[in-house]
Amino acid sequence: MKILIIGGNGTIGKVVTNYFSDKNEVIIGGRTNGNVSVDIADSNSIKKMFEQTGKLDAIICIAGEAKWADFNELTEEDYYIGLKSKLMGQVNLVRIGQNNLNPNGSITLSTGILADDPVVKTTSAAMVNGALHSFVQAVALEIKNGIRVNVVSLGMVQDAYEKYKDYFPGHNAISMKKAINGYVRSVMGKRNGEIIRIYI
Amino acid sequence: MKILIIGGNGTIGKVVTNYFSDKNEVIIGGRTNGNVSVDIADSNSIKKMFEQTGKLDAIICIAGEAKWADFNELTEEDYYIGLKSKLMGQVNLVRIGQNNLNPNGSITLSTGILADDPVVKTTSAAMVNGALHSFVQAVALEIKNGIRVNVVSLGMVQDAYEKYKDYFPGHNAISMKKAINGYVRSVMGKRNGEIIRIYI
Repeated sequence: MKILIIGGNGTIGKVVTNYFSDKNEVIIGGRTNGNVSVDIADSNSIKKMFEQTGKLDAIICIAGEAKWADFNELTEEDYYIGLKSKLMGQVNLVRIGQNNLNPNGSITLSTGILADDPVVKTTSAAMVNGALHSFVQAVALEIKNGIRVNVVSLGMVQDAYEKYKDYFPGHNAISMKKAINGYVRSVMGKRNGEIIRIYI
Repeated sequence: MKILIIGGNGTIGKVVTNYFSDKNEVIIGGRTNGNVSVDIADSNSIKKMFEQTGKLDAIICIAGEAKWADFNELTEEDYYIGLKSKLMGQVNLVRIGQNNLNPNGSITLSTGILADDPVVKTTSAAMVNGALHSFVQAVALEIKNGIRVNVVSLGMVQDAYEKYKDYFPGHNAISMKKAINGYVRSVMGKRNGEIIRIYI
């Protein structure tokens, strides 16, 4: 398979890339490093990326920003960082990317546990994740050519534990093996519109 | 109690207004008719509305737009109709409205069954509803002064059945009595951060 992994150099992205690179042709998309350059917050940048990749069998996105801050510090504009990047960036990957997939290809988006189990400072980040969970269920009813769209929603992963543990009191770290398996389930399985929750 | 009901003249809003008017002082907010004028898609309009209402005990929002259309017809801009109106409009009502509530007041937002059980043409509408479900859970962790924030998520209601039945094959209509009770549970109960799902 020919697989595009956007964010393939990130904490989760690099282990997912490492896994799929074994038996597939993997193209890494990223803002600063990668085989193709892309800023998912800009739909023109997404279009230009797909002109370079050619037809694909799978698109995986493990990228997108949202601002973390106390509710009373977040401005209206701050919310739009997440709405434009992590939310509409991934929606636009489906809108545009569907035309760059071979029949029966797949698109895998990424969210996180905050959608269902938020912590302090995450009114914006939680919102974006929850939006994508509903979007994936809705788009699965309409997408054509046998294309499947799923979303992987991970808890705090082992490789990010030291950085994020203070934000997630009492949360258990998800092993990177389990994290990888979320993406494997989406790409190699047959489900469509699934929210792949890996929280424990 | 002094209660502001935004969208209090709509299909669901008018029965909720009728219920609460019996024993409370109700102010109706609306774009074209109502006691105070407001366009929730514009945060300045929300601020001006609260200057007129004075301090409140409860804010109920049963308003907000999102565009319904086939996935392949929705443009990037179309998604922003829902993001600006139904999503950020209700988020801004919490951001701004919390300062116009008496201690232990409540804010009740509205979404709908599409968050969990979308139908065709609702990639945008479902997304907005799902975003609000996660937002309400997140903001409940941080909001001050004993204020509670909940969201009522109704299935297709009886009074909208004829208009919407073709979009919701096999869905059962929710009685207006059940719909009213969703708002009563939020305003009169003690829960915070609850998604009040009334789907059957």
